[in-house]
Amino acid sequence: MSFRTRIEETSKDKDSRIVLALDFPFQEQKNRSQLLHRAEKMLKSVQEHICAVKINHHLILPFGTFGGIQELLRKIHRQQLVAIMDCKANDIGATNRVIAEYYYSAGFDALIANPFVGWEEGLEPIFEAASRHKKGVILLAYMSHKGAKEGYDQTISDSKTGRQLKQYCSFARKALSWNADGVVVGATYPEKIKEIHQILGEKTPIYSPGIGTQGGKIKTALEAGAKYLILGRVITTSEDPDKTAKELNKKIRNAIKIGVA
Amino acid sequence: MSFRTRIEETSKDKDSRIVLALDFPFQEQKNRSQLLHRAEKMLKSVQEHICAVKINHHLILPFGTFGGIQELLRKIHRQQLVAIMDCKANDIGATNRVIAEYYYSAGFDALIANPFVGWEEGLEPIFEAASRHKKGVILLAYMSHKGAKEGYDQTISDSKTGRQLKQYCSFARKALSWNADGVVVGATYPEKIKEIHQILGEKTPIYSPGIGTQGGKIKTALEAGAKYLILGRVITTSEDPDKTAKELNKKIRNAIKIGVA
Repeated sequence: MSFRTRIEETSKDKDSRIVLALDFPFQEQKNRSQLLHRAEKMLKSVQEHICAVKINHHLILPFGTFGGIQELLRKIHRQQLVAIMDCKANDIGATNRVIAEYYYSAGFDALIANPFVGWEEGLEPIFEAASRHKKGVILLAYMSHKGAKEGYDQTISDSKTGRQLKQYCSFARKALSWNADGVVVGATYPEKIKEIHQILGEKTPIYSPGIGTQGGKIKTALEAGAKYLILGRVITTSEDPDKTAKELNKKIRNAIKIGVA
Repeated sequence: MSFRTRIEETSKDKDSRIVLALDFPFQEQKNRSQLLHRAEKMLKSVQEHICAVKINHHLILPFGTFGGIQELLRKIHRQQLVAIMDCKANDIGATNRVIAEYYYSAGFDALIANPFVGWEEGLEPIFEAASRHKKGVILLAYMSHKGAKEGYDQTISDSKTGRQLKQYCSFARKALSWNADGVVVGATYPEKIKEIHQILGEKTPIYSPGIGTQGGKIKTALEAGAKYLILGRVITTSEDPDKTAKELNKKIRNAIKIGVA
């Protein structure tokens, strides 16, 4: 079963489109162990209301991909959730292959990569490793921060046709032709979600971060075509993460029910 | 003293322009500890012939940024060498800040970032952390692999003037205006080194990977304007790394002596 199908089925089973971004602030070495406790506690409080967990360097840098992280991944899987590594891979192929081996072997079900690095000796080895390990690859198409405009929104000339197009449209097309399992588009740019969704159709789901803390809105993102909402600080820094996750999931379900997504 | 000045002085003291890329293949958990031994052994064999060590995810993913890696960084510093983390950071600002804190606190003297992510809520927090920790930031301008053409060589329209320019020229200009401590340009594209060097002048040094295994040539890269040569597999997978590093450094010195760089 492809990653795309796995997360879709998990999402149906859990009745949730929430990908929890399990990120925490920088910690000194002496406070490092509390990070894993906090991560496990957070997972436990919200696991009923989510379909996936996204981990970033906030948890990888203090621990690496062995030991505590693998135990956390086992706990995620025991809840029938999927785990995504948000490494935004953008290295040369030989290095990308090593990166993919560490993350997939650790237990991650998919990783996020930057299509800017290109295919040949670039992302090809990641897609190859994904296919060998039966895992997924999600590509960045338009990030959620303000400066995203500089790169993702720039106008480029197509190298073959010379025709002008937007960088994010080129990335969306690469996601289709490389058969990516999804793309990331910031909820802070709903008009870009819409445009990218028109290119991708229903084949390639859109993962949308940037709700809440960064200013994105759930209903607008879903309406524009986002399938999964990546929610981090809006849940993890709230006073009652369980309650917040439950309410946000209810909001998402209601939006879907009234037909916005 | 800025990172730029520190590596320049180290390079003069050591009479070397070689940045050793200390990369090793993927290892299973049971063989993990041998990685640090290999890294230390490699460092010991070649430390006389290099001015800096570049570490990538090959060593960070199995260990994280505490423990063994910090001990390795102390060994690098004890040899009066500088340490660069090649994380190719390209996340949102809040995450980039956490990434920079982990690497700089661990002891890295500089890190490599991708300017594609933009400034506002993008790389700004990395430059801010670098300035606070008195460390460096090096930007990617043109990578060494074949697929680099897809992104780095694309023609873009300047968002202000509408004028067409190459992506790598735009990155080189950002390196100047953001006051980066250097840029990375693949030795496999000497004509790009030349063009980028014309934009940067002597202010911002060019770090050039891709010699040997990937096909780049020392003399050509130096002639085109590269200041530091990032050498990895050509040394680390050779039968006698000490001898290889020594010979390569001699080749570089000779090229400089006859005035190519």
